[in-house]
Amino acid sequence: MSETQAVTPSTRGPLAIIAGAGDFPPRLASIAAGQGRPVYVAALDGAADPTAFGAAELNIYRLGQLGRLLDELRRREVAELVLIGSLPRPSFAALRPEASTLKYLPHFAKAFRGGDDHLLRGVVSFFEGQGFTVQGPADIAPAMTAPAGALGRRAASPDQKALIARGFELLAALSPFDVGQAAILADHRVIAIEAAEGTDAMIRRVAEMVASGRLRIAKGDGVLVKAPKDGQDLRVDMPAIGPQTLRLVSEAGLSGIGLRAGRVLIGDGAALGKLADQAGLFVEGVP
Amino acid sequence: MSETQAVTPSTRGPLAIIAGAGDFPPRLASIAAGQGRPVYVAALDGAADPTAFGAAELNIYRLGQLGRLLDELRRREVAELVLIGSLPRPSFAALRPEASTLKYLPHFAKAFRGGDDHLLRGVVSFFEGQGFTVQGPADIAPAMTAPAGALGRRAASPDQKALIARGFELLAALSPFDVGQAAILADHRVIAIEAAEGTDAMIRRVAEMVASGRLRIAKGDGVLVKAPKDGQDLRVDMPAIGPQTLRLVSEAGLSGIGLRAGRVLIGDGAALGKLADQAGLFVEGVP
Repeated sequence: MSETQAVTPSTRGPLAIIAGAGDFPPRLASIAAGQGRPVYVAALDGAADPTAFGAAELNIYRLGQLGRLLDELRRREVAELVLIGSLPRPSFAALRPEASTLKYLPHFAKAFRGGDDHLLRGVVSFFEGQGFTVQGPADIAPAMTAPAGALGRRAASPDQKALIARGFELLAALSPFDVGQAAILADHRVIAIEAAEGTDAMIRRVAEMVASGRLRIAKGDGVLVKAPKDGQDLRVDMPAIGPQTLRLVSEAGLSGIGLRAGRVLIGDGAALGKLADQAGLFVEGVP
Repeated sequence: MSETQAVTPSTRGPLAIIAGAGDFPPRLASIAAGQGRPVYVAALDGAADPTAFGAAELNIYRLGQLGRLLDELRRREVAELVLIGSLPRPSFAALRPEASTLKYLPHFAKAFRGGDDHLLRGVVSFFEGQGFTVQGPADIAPAMTAPAGALGRRAASPDQKALIARGFELLAALSPFDVGQAAILADHRVIAIEAAEGTDAMIRRVAEMVASGRLRIAKGDGVLVKAPKDGQDLRVDMPAIGPQTLRLVSEAGLSGIGLRAGRVLIGDGAALGKLADQAGLFVEGVP
């Protein structure tokens, strides 16, 4: 292997992290900095917590300041960026475009029609069209995704694994419809399927059915499955779980979580495994 | 055609209606009586309203009195029966089997594992095993199902029809998983998929997302689709809508409902069409 080949894009030059809400963006910034790369954080106003990034260079941007962000990325000779973190529905004021952003609007107006995939593809293609390489969090920090096998001490039983496999088949069947990142199965049945409400709301729905006696889930039964849709762009739209997911799964009386290994964000795996152990849940990564 | 062939099962001898809750059982009893057939109603205790059946001969049965019901059906020389109406989760007392019912329990114990389809197949096979012919409401009263085309004055637009067709494709893709009788689509996307929560709860979920601003549905957009699963036994498990469905669809701000014609129960089509007109909704039966 020549020395030129050894210099891969992910080890070269500064990395920009366009950061939404949650723990994932600071964690990614910290891992990238630990790899010796200069990191520049563009914290999205109203979403990212700008105090969570330690010593990283950081500016806050409204969505309407896209033009200003591009100028700054070029000034810093950034070639690679990552979009990570959740984005609450932006306020009208946040969207209000500055003069330097107006010219980019037609691109996004087109992308706003259709499913989530369509919109996110539009965002990726925009940055690529501006000459940037869009990396996924898994490209920079593979340890932030679900590993294969059990995350904590508890592993899924053969029955639980069969239920997980069935759930993945279900999600695959939904993929062509650009829906279905998660589902809950119990008692050999599909109990809930996620659409626009999101994973947390879906788990809460099952918890309510159990609490009201409409649904019984036996001990050791009941799994949440989560996996990307076929063709989902994992660079900007990788499914994710976190401590809140585990809490809700535990409250709903499920036995654990099945994830596509390497294809679902978990953030801090050690912390999550510990939480799973405390709650008596399995978190199983399936290759 | 010989005279023997003209005497079809549905015009011969008494019809037993094993009746659960709701308006469908009395309506079916009235239509069957209007066809000149003797009708015997077995009203399930705690579910059917025994006063709703007019002059029909009727007895009330707990589920645990299955043996007694079979004896009565044989005494009346009933060859055909229909199971219709909804069945709330039965109390433990209702299930307590009489001596004459005990011997049938192993059949049902086996049927209780697996999905809804499995359980209902078990009920049908039980009555068939006892020598009865199980008819569907549509066999007796086709007018109780969704007709092809618009039910009221309002018809689905080409865009709305495209959304309905997409919804039916989604439900077909879910069929192998024994789930998904209904879904809601809007803005070219799948918004909600029904699983264990039932259709009403699914519509309410969309109404709540709209009310909280998490979801916007434009005027004229948004449809509920409802269709049987492939292989669903329409004799005992035909999907249904009613006035409550229309109310919820209207509250959620959807534009209408797409149904598989002839394969979804609507009960009183004239009354439902009038309600749809009042609410400004379409109810479209798709062949």
